[in-house]
Amino acid sequence: MSQKPIPFTPLVDSLPAAVPFVGPETLERMRGTPFDARIGANESAFGMSPKALAAVIEEAPRSAWYGDSVSWPLREALADHHGVDPEEILIGAGIDALLGNTVRMLARPGTQVVTSAGAYPTFNYHVAGFGADLMTIPYRNDAEDPEALLAKIQETGAPLAYFANPDNPMGTWYDAETIQNLIDRIPDGCVLILDEAYIDFAPDGTAPAIDASNPKLLRMRTFSKAHGMAGLRIGYTIAHKDLITGLNKVRNHFEINRLAQVAALASLQDLSFVQSVCEEVARGRQELYALAEGLGLKALPSATNFVAIDMGRDGAYARSVLKELDARGVFVRMPGVAPMDRCIRVTVGTAQDRKIFGERLAEVVASLS
Amino acid sequence: MSQKPIPFTPLVDSLPAAVPFVGPETLERMRGTPFDARIGANESAFGMSPKALAAVIEEAPRSAWYGDSVSWPLREALADHHGVDPEEILIGAGIDALLGNTVRMLARPGTQVVTSAGAYPTFNYHVAGFGADLMTIPYRNDAEDPEALLAKIQETGAPLAYFANPDNPMGTWYDAETIQNLIDRIPDGCVLILDEAYIDFAPDGTAPAIDASNPKLLRMRTFSKAHGMAGLRIGYTIAHKDLITGLNKVRNHFEINRLAQVAALASLQDLSFVQSVCEEVARGRQELYALAEGLGLKALPSATNFVAIDMGRDGAYARSVLKELDARGVFVRMPGVAPMDRCIRVTVGTAQDRKIFGERLAEVVASLS
Repeated sequence: MSQKPIPFTPLVDSLPAAVPFVGPETLERMRGTPFDARIGANESAFGMSPKALAAVIEEAPRSAWYGDSVSWPLREALADHHGVDPEEILIGAGIDALLGNTVRMLARPGTQVVTSAGAYPTFNYHVAGFGADLMTIPYRNDAEDPEALLAKIQETGAPLAYFANPDNPMGTWYDAETIQNLIDRIPDGCVLILDEAYIDFAPDGTAPAIDASNPKLLRMRTFSKAHGMAGLRIGYTIAHKDLITGLNKVRNHFEINRLAQVAALASLQDLSFVQSVCEEVARGRQELYALAEGLGLKALPSATNFVAIDMGRDGAYARSVLKELDARGVFVRMPGVAPMDRCIRVTVGTAQDRKIFGERLAEVVASLS
Repeated sequence: MSQKPIPFTPLVDSLPAAVPFVGPETLERMRGTPFDARIGANESAFGMSPKALAAVIEEAPRSAWYGDSVSWPLREALADHHGVDPEEILIGAGIDALLGNTVRMLARPGTQVVTSAGAYPTFNYHVAGFGADLMTIPYRNDAEDPEALLAKIQETGAPLAYFANPDNPMGTWYDAETIQNLIDRIPDGCVLILDEAYIDFAPDGTAPAIDASNPKLLRMRTFSKAHGMAGLRIGYTIAHKDLITGLNKVRNHFEINRLAQVAALASLQDLSFVQSVCEEVARGRQELYALAEGLGLKALPSATNFVAIDMGRDGAYARSVLKELDARGVFVRMPGVAPMDRCIRVTVGTAQDRKIFGERLAEVVASLS
């Protein structure tokens, strides 16, 4: 019996089945055994605040209730924390969900969207998913390039651009003045996503002052990294209320789970814990720098919870290092685009993670040389 | 200083800012005090399985890790449970998320999509959100009408249609034979969403046999209702693997939170608990029928965890009942479309919930008559 094919939209029909990231659990099933060191997804090795954990456990018996669809207590607390109005904050199920809705809000087939070649793949996934055209500029000195971004926005008339500070996957960053200068020069008719997922780990003076009166800017923050809640799926954007209104027109209104809401609120009330995590991460970065140096490798200075280690050769070599590390029970990832793909990207884990990583990387370097 | 307006897509610019549902927490903030009985969102009053709760509490310290992006252990367990292949199952962040991605996959501006006027508003929200045209057929005898649905699909050539069994908001249902007949007659070129969110509460013989070889059908199930996990955001679809592939092209791949994954898996391994919930709900339905009868009202027989009570007059009257119940601390909802809006929709809560509801509904009926 012949049947008509499934009536996918032409756009969805044309999309590849590829995914932005293969998860560590999937890799473990392919390997057949768990990793000894899970330091590839920039997850926090320091967990969440004990107060956030207690809030989750206390709220768990009420999991039968939907979460507050407008996340009001959390938005009030964040508004207070950032000195903005709750109407200028929107909670999302992680920055990934916010990125998807933002692309949907501002881009459609034929729209040109600007990012850096090698920057966050999930943003690119959403741009492709909504049929828009991704225009890229190269990294410069292993960092996203604000001047080239502005030039490309001008050249294309793009209504949407993406910039991360600090950067993922390289860990590089600019100071607040440079970023403010970028913000000030966003052309009319363009909205910039400033992805600050890693801002908590960066030195003071990295984040420009928050100003939600600017209708050309979406700041994105997350509880996945320094707050240790990647598995709970919660992040937020700070933006002009008209942008928030736009996102509210398309988002799933009950998307934020109840336990994430109470955890994020509790963590926000325990910032000394988050501070201690950032201090641990800073120490761990120093150890990774030293570890790389001990192997004759160069680590890039990082303002994040990961370190890019320059393997000193090309992408093919770094990929073989990654493969050998995987075979030895170490999960790390690497940049996808040259010349940054000469590096591997290592999350600052525990001291034990670094010990395992150091030993096995030494083996791999020896075996491949 | 004049600026260009925010460059929303014309579609998003045209969308209303309205939301499908106002959440109970928002209503409580408007009222100024919590509800005494939260029986409006069809949440389970019986919570989740103690084993699921234990799994959440055990996993909570690992919340810093992203959830498995392909939810493999849960898909394996569901595949085993339903007698299908794991490739024929996709986990979503609740049926709401699955509906959004399904609409996106099959509809675009100009596409006609068929549902019943008064059926699940969040589906309609997504249809509007992707610019498609919603074509509706009326309910018949307070139930969705399979014959009219098929006729409308034929008439419009719609590539997507929605049907819930049992129905929300009326609680009515068809037997498996009738639904199988609907499935068998879906025209080529159309995909039917069969929303079975409430199927666990329905009598044996309500769900047709699962057959994921049919590329014209998406069955949707949830852990929000009988499994008591609305706040955790987890549901799934069983469908032909080509439909699953399509959904995988657009979904957020790390959208399922880690605690929901372990909770759902544990609950699936404790189906005697779910069975006991369904028995409690069945008893509660009988009590709600009796309660309505005691007030001279007619309750509609229901195969769900809620009961539609016919207030015996028009929508304006039922809305005033709802308002008065709200003023007396009782959260219930009601159908949005005539003639079903002569009813209010009451979730089967605890015995205490029913006591409060019964007393206050009696007051309201007396005060309004």
